[in-house]
Formats: sequence, structure tokens, C-alpha cells
Amino acid sequence: MSEGIVLFAHGSRDREWARPFETLAATLTAKVTGPVVIAYLESMQPALAEAIGTLVQHGATSIRVVPVFLGAGSHIKEDLPRLVARARTDHPKVAIRLDAPIGEQSTVIEAIAAAIARG
Amino acid sequence: MSEGIVLFAHGSRDREWARPFETLAATLTAKVTGPVVIAYLESMQPALAEAIGTLVQHGATSIRVVPVFLGAGSHIKEDLPRLVARARTDHPKVAIRLDAPIGEQSTVIEAIAAAIARG
Repeated sequence: MSEGIVLFAHGSRDREWARPFETLAATLTAKVTGPVVIAYLESMQPALAEAIGTLVQHGATSIRVVPVFLGAGSHIKEDLPRLVARARTDHPKVAIRLDAPIGEQSTVIEAIAAAIARG
Repeated sequence: MSEGIVLFAHGSRDREWARPFETLAATLTAKVTGPVVIAYLESMQPALAEAIGTLVQHGATSIRVVPVFLGAGSHIKEDLPRLVARARTDHPKVAIRLDAPIGEQSTVIEAIAAAIARG
């Protein structure tokens, strides 16, 4: 099985909040060979543990967790590493990699700037 | 004077959180003719009213407020429109335009997906 990707987002009580992340998951799915799922820190389901569990159940032996956050605060620096550490303990045979948040990727910042400049 | 742009971000108690937004402001400044400033909803300064006041003091007669948010929850749907309405009342001669959040821009979502797929 190919590598599974978890898009990790904050979550919100507002259902519509998730729309850009769902669009991102669909766009990314067309670009990669493995499964792409979304997980939420709070207010929405599934949580990270559940999303990783689903990928493992479907045979994933390698999983990337991608924080879909622009700024990195305590959610990224404290909460997420703790959740990932727990997932590694729960799935010792699965390679779980934690990416830098997307806001640290220069191509993403460049694309946002270009989109704003066009607007 | 050219149009001023306010990049409106959430804010955090963690100073490093602002880094992607500062990079974005610098990148955008190189692409547009008018001034670009950042404003924060909470925990960081300046607030939106202050950022808009600064642009107006420097002669801006037209201002775009760009929500640098991926998902749109109550901050974007309730807090921000209220802040913008207050700014319009405070500066009746200035045209203040509120953009859709960047998460609704397809080029931004496409760039994020491409960056993740490359990773």
C-alpha cells in the first residue's frame, strides 16, 4: 500500500469551516497514489488517532501527518507532537512522519501572495 | 496614494506564530504598489482598527482587508464583518473592501496541494 496522508486541521463548531480542507483533500487525492484523510484537533471528527487508525486498518505502513496551519502556535508545537507520539506508541510498526506546517512552505506563501496581488 | 492592503490574521500568544504572515506581507509588498500591513484579531498588535487608522493617516483612500484564514468560522463570519463595519463608520470617506478568506481561493488550495504532493 502507498503512503497515507493525514491533513491535520484545527476544526470548528461551524460545519462550513471545513470546506477548504475538504477541497484540499480532494485536490491532493488526485495528485498522489495513496489515501488522503482529514483529522481535526477539536470540535470536528475524526480526531488524529481515529484517522490514523483508519489508514492502518486499510493497510498503511507509512503515514505522513501534514499540519494544515499557517501559523504554528501551541497546537502545532505541543498538542500535535503529543498526539503523534501517542499514535506511534499505538502503531509501533507504522512509520508516522510529522511534516512542518504548510505556512512554513515558501511555495504556499508565494501562491497566497500571488492570489492576493491578482485580487 | 495606491490602495492599502490589510492582511487580517488570527494572532497567538506565541510570537513565532506570526512568522508566515510576516513573510507573506513581505512577499506581497514586492508585488503591489501600495502599502501592506498585518492586523490581528487577538493576542497580537495591531488590531484591525489601528492598522486601518495607520493606512488612513498615511493617505489611503481605498483599503482591502484580506482574511488570511483557511477555514471561515465565527471569526470571519461575525467578528470581522463587525470590525469592518466599525472601521467604515470611523472612516466614512475611505472605501474599505472585505475580501473572501484565502481558503476560498482555488489557486491557493491548488498550491497547497501541489506543495504537499511534492513533499
